[in-house]
Amino acid sequence: MKRPLILVSNDDGITAKGIRTLVEAAAELGDVLVVAPNSPQSGMGHAITIHSPLKIYASDVFPQVQGCYESSGTPADCVKLAKYYVLKGTPPDLVVSGVNHGSNTSISILYSGTMSAAIEGAIEGVPAIGFSLCDYGKDADFSHTIPYIKKVMAQVLEKGLPKGVALNVNFPKKQEQAIQGIKICRQAIARWQEVFDERQDPYGRSYLWLAGSFVNHDKGNDTDEWAIANNYVSVVPCVFDLTAHHAIATLNEGWEKIL
Amino acid sequence: MKRPLILVSNDDGITAKGIRTLVEAAAELGDVLVVAPNSPQSGMGHAITIHSPLKIYASDVFPQVQGCYESSGTPADCVKLAKYYVLKGTPPDLVVSGVNHGSNTSISILYSGTMSAAIEGAIEGVPAIGFSLCDYGKDADFSHTIPYIKKVMAQVLEKGLPKGVALNVNFPKKQEQAIQGIKICRQAIARWQEVFDERQDPYGRSYLWLAGSFVNHDKGNDTDEWAIANNYVSVVPCVFDLTAHHAIATLNEGWEKIL
Repeated sequence: MKRPLILVSNDDGITAKGIRTLVEAAAELGDVLVVAPNSPQSGMGHAITIHSPLKIYASDVFPQVQGCYESSGTPADCVKLAKYYVLKGTPPDLVVSGVNHGSNTSISILYSGTMSAAIEGAIEGVPAIGFSLCDYGKDADFSHTIPYIKKVMAQVLEKGLPKGVALNVNFPKKQEQAIQGIKICRQAIARWQEVFDERQDPYGRSYLWLAGSFVNHDKGNDTDEWAIANNYVSVVPCVFDLTAHHAIATLNEGWEKIL
Repeated sequence: MKRPLILVSNDDGITAKGIRTLVEAAAELGDVLVVAPNSPQSGMGHAITIHSPLKIYASDVFPQVQGCYESSGTPADCVKLAKYYVLKGTPPDLVVSGVNHGSNTSISILYSGTMSAAIEGAIEGVPAIGFSLCDYGKDADFSHTIPYIKKVMAQVLEKGLPKGVALNVNFPKKQEQAIQGIKICRQAIARWQEVFDERQDPYGRSYLWLAGSFVNHDKGNDTDEWAIANNYVSVVPCVFDLTAHHAIATLNEGWEKIL
């Protein structure tokens, strides 16, 4: 049987530790094509590069895989480059992104470059998964994620995903106790409470660092935040059709006078 | 009665023609605070600036309004800066973004800096609207949008919006025939078919321009694409809870063995 072609990207850049973990896991399940940014792209959301040109070049960071490229683009650009440039229009069988250094639970999915690569895969009709480890530490240990990455990837390769759905998978930080299992979750309704840390540059001009803290008022035990807090792997199926379908009738009624 | 405070941002930058249109319309309905990027940010999606510092400074581009600032940040940064820095934590009464130079219908909502400002407003619990004109021309005529911008803004100021919902409003290009009215729509399921235009720089190195074309296979007459094609204003209510709620049961059943 033909081995599936797995496209691997990320947002921390091709030299990050997290993508090494993902490449190793993917190589056990299929042929691997890496197309990843040549620099960190955290917080890039679903940005694409339209006002400047893109560079892409063969890379020897992962000599063991079937194809490896670095790009100046964003994570979403990398998925577009992989399908339309490297593969000349043929989609891969699976798109995986990560493993992100840091959480992409709850509202962070919107800011996440990792998830934008996965969602871009889903837009292209390819089953797609973003993986993130809830550990920002420079020495973060990814070892406990590997068996779960393989389980989730194998499941998606075997069964596919519902149309228009990508998966947002987060792993708890490594603890003494083993991971408790996998939970299918919804995105916790939470947000960042921002603080701007104001400083002066050497020329006396003010600059700001975005330095917020995460606030979760969602008490549900079916959320990704709950799963992570309880040492489960959280799997949130997510859409790229942003329509608030439930609000269409409400607006049609309430706006009658101006429609 | 106290006039509402309307925050205006965009992604084409504070000097773009489209934001002038929006500021003029907003000033008729409330006090206006402008916090907008100091350079074009099209295609920035929901990017935020976490790897470099931000600058923000008072601007005289709109001397007639209550407050006006330019920022080095993305559209989403601008909304965070407005609430947490300029307004010291007090939310505005309405966030509006645009008027974008170019369409943000269908899947383009994901790549749109304009819509990221609106969605950031919604995350903060503020009613929020992104406006876009389906005309990329340098001399695009925005005049036909003004009465509709005011109608939609007034409606949202009066009635609010369902919790967790922002509006994606697109206007057809100016035509001889007047706009036919406003339609509440769903996001058309469509995507960009990408082409990379490969060139050589003066040093013989290859670079690429992302140059795709929009492909709409969605035949529905309840979509934003249909509305625009038929000279209506499209209003799509959209979410920031990306959970594919309909897929949770499917995954819980199909994945039984690994859960």
